[in-house]
Amino acid sequence: MQRTNTAPLSGFMQLLPEDQIEFDRIKQVIARAHHRNGFLPVETPIVHREELLLAKAGGDTEKQIYRFEKGDNKLALRFDLTVPLAAYVAENQSALNFPFKVSQIGKSYRGERSQRGRFREFYQCDADVLGRGTLDIAYDAEIIALIHEIYSELDFGKFTLRISNRKLLNGFLNSLGLGEKSVSVSHIIDDAEKISETEFVKKLQDLQIDEKTIQSITNFINIKGTNDEILTALTNLQITNEQFTSGLAELQQVTQLLTDRDITDNAHIDLMIVRGLDYYTGTVYETILDAHPEIGSISSGGRYDNLTSTYSNEQFQGVGGSIGLTRLFFILKEIGVINSQQKSPVDLLIIPMSSDQFAFSQQLASRLRTDNNLRVDVLLQSMKIAKKLSYADRARIQNTIVIGENEVATNHLLVKNMQTGDLTPLDEFLTTS
Amino acid sequence: MQRTNTAPLSGFMQLLPEDQIEFDRIKQVIARAHHRNGFLPVETPIVHREELLLAKAGGDTEKQIYRFEKGDNKLALRFDLTVPLAAYVAENQSALNFPFKVSQIGKSYRGERSQRGRFREFYQCDADVLGRGTLDIAYDAEIIALIHEIYSELDFGKFTLRISNRKLLNGFLNSLGLGEKSVSVSHIIDDAEKISETEFVKKLQDLQIDEKTIQSITNFINIKGTNDEILTALTNLQITNEQFTSGLAELQQVTQLLTDRDITDNAHIDLMIVRGLDYYTGTVYETILDAHPEIGSISSGGRYDNLTSTYSNEQFQGVGGSIGLTRLFFILKEIGVINSQQKSPVDLLIIPMSSDQFAFSQQLASRLRTDNNLRVDVLLQSMKIAKKLSYADRARIQNTIVIGENEVATNHLLVKNMQTGDLTPLDEFLTTS
Repeated sequence: MQRTNTAPLSGFMQLLPEDQIEFDRIKQVIARAHHRNGFLPVETPIVHREELLLAKAGGDTEKQIYRFEKGDNKLALRFDLTVPLAAYVAENQSALNFPFKVSQIGKSYRGERSQRGRFREFYQCDADVLGRGTLDIAYDAEIIALIHEIYSELDFGKFTLRISNRKLLNGFLNSLGLGEKSVSVSHIIDDAEKISETEFVKKLQDLQIDEKTIQSITNFINIKGTNDEILTALTNLQITNEQFTSGLAELQQVTQLLTDRDITDNAHIDLMIVRGLDYYTGTVYETILDAHPEIGSISSGGRYDNLTSTYSNEQFQGVGGSIGLTRLFFILKEIGVINSQQKSPVDLLIIPMSSDQFAFSQQLASRLRTDNNLRVDVLLQSMKIAKKLSYADRARIQNTIVIGENEVATNHLLVKNMQTGDLTPLDEFLTTS
Repeated sequence: MQRTNTAPLSGFMQLLPEDQIEFDRIKQVIARAHHRNGFLPVETPIVHREELLLAKAGGDTEKQIYRFEKGDNKLALRFDLTVPLAAYVAENQSALNFPFKVSQIGKSYRGERSQRGRFREFYQCDADVLGRGTLDIAYDAEIIALIHEIYSELDFGKFTLRISNRKLLNGFLNSLGLGEKSVSVSHIIDDAEKISETEFVKKLQDLQIDEKTIQSITNFINIKGTNDEILTALTNLQITNEQFTSGLAELQQVTQLLTDRDITDNAHIDLMIVRGLDYYTGTVYETILDAHPEIGSISSGGRYDNLTSTYSNEQFQGVGGSIGLTRLFFILKEIGVINSQQKSPVDLLIIPMSSDQFAFSQQLASRLRTDNNLRVDVLLQSMKIAKKLSYADRARIQNTIVIGENEVATNHLLVKNMQTGDLTPLDEFLTTS
């Protein structure tokens, strides 16, 4: 009989337990940081009316949506967490408390072309702050500080937050008379790091932009220095249109608020940052691992001005930051930053010699879980003792206690360190571990 | 312009933050109990090849599956966590460590007829132990003890675990010469509590079963008493076929193992328990809240003998227990057992009077989060102070600190209890809370 193919579909991540444990640990670190900072959990369905999702999906995204019918309903799987959040806010606006700080951690779906490191089912970990009407600029810094806190705790190595502002860029392009071309030019700037300078200039020339203006653009995105130096250089441009001055003021405020929170070394203004998505309207940021710029941004986001446009007559301004956890985990494991081979989530394995010691073993386990907050497994399968110890080895459980007749009679319990072979009395183990 | 309908689809739960917080708390209690007891996390995709899911879906289930096509692929959403787990184990058997204790908490999908309290998207929280080849009976008690631990911690009121064994029932029916009718009779016994005794008898008569045999069945399912009394009564039936004696021995072992773990008051043998699903082969259990038997079982499961039959040539025996969290949450909220209106997950809200106090407020917040493990929010939106306090009220945050010029100058900080109006110096608040 031919067996059913049990491999997961291409683009769908399925991990062995040791990797899943590490994946879940990272997810927990992110969730805890959200909650510690007052972001409230929201969970929207994965399945929605097709029309609800299509209302917000443009171009490529629309083609990638998983759509299907059930009964009379045209349904689709969400392709991000932001569109369902917009519907959620529109639906529940009178019950919510604004500014509304939202934590969303869940799966989304995009039927992308199959490609290594591209996932069709992927976790996003989003934090957003939504204001009814307006939302103060201080929340832009709040989101960036949150991402800073998360990556500091995750400890994947040094990282840099690269911050810019879309108003500033648009104001700058307007000052060059490029108002009508600003979207196309922004896309080219967004690509600048991936292409050569010649290609960059060529693309701008293709838009019929003159050499002097191209030089101005090149100079602009290459303004470097400390945040203060960059802000001074921008001020010295003496551009007076409202977009530019407002964007500059925002960028100044955001960086000052980060400085106030002692985030100075690794939060830098970087005028190359645009973010591809056209809905960002103010602050934008990306995050790179300093040792691995080649993997691209590990968290991005920014300010958007009208989250719920197609769903509500009221305006909701917001700012958000997202971590694409599935891709991040895959890449960090591939380049060796994550190594999940060494950890077992089980602190201690109790091995009763026979079923005569089950009761004693279970009571011991229960006490260690409750009083010592340990994760304890009891091996109940009848196997030879050598096989029981090899179970502990394979599971990479560091500590075991074998319980035989003697141990039950004397209550003299020894914890064996599986790596060193050392035996430590349980009491001593508990006070030192 | 007509606005898009933003209501969630019928059968898809979407909660306000206060409910989501409580939902997530329950989910966390379950996950922590799984992990503390050595169950390892596994997460399978929600989307699978249609053929993989259909291989295991019979009858009604098949009609309920969400199926769709993307490119050349026929896809479907998982309808439970067990079928994808079977594929996972078949796929990864050489990399896994058996007995394999698995924790799965995730969403499944069934396009059921729309009905209050029935969900098409629902969380299941499953714990399973899988043995390669055979799995010792001790793990049956392990699963029941785990469910006992979870509901003790969740504290939804007194509950009872009702335990039986399919071998015992089948052996009993065989002893009555009902071998061929045992599936039909089992289904009638499974329904016994929902129908009158007259209907029960009538259904058995419809199967051409004679009065004396019907009386024997009725007597059997009504054997009551302590576990020891029931076991004695079963022994006294003097049925000698292998199924019966083996089922009786298992039931005896499972209840003894539970007694060894001090689970005595609320784990009872109950011969009415069958479980509808035909794949259970030994131990079966259900769980009821003593004060609310009308809501039915709040956790069920049991022993199955061949998890991976269509996926692998090897046999994997297992035992599992499942909590249907979405339905559980909905019902417990409806009958008032869960009340999420009183809790805010934010311990303290810091309210700076103006942006001049942002830096001080953020540094204070950061210290309280790190040193005191508190969840702290800082209200950064510019609003009148009355509106700021009403923000705290609406969010049901219990404690606030207002930070003005004075507070920054003197560092004399007072925590206001929003319910009593009492002011407590921060230091005192931190040592007493």
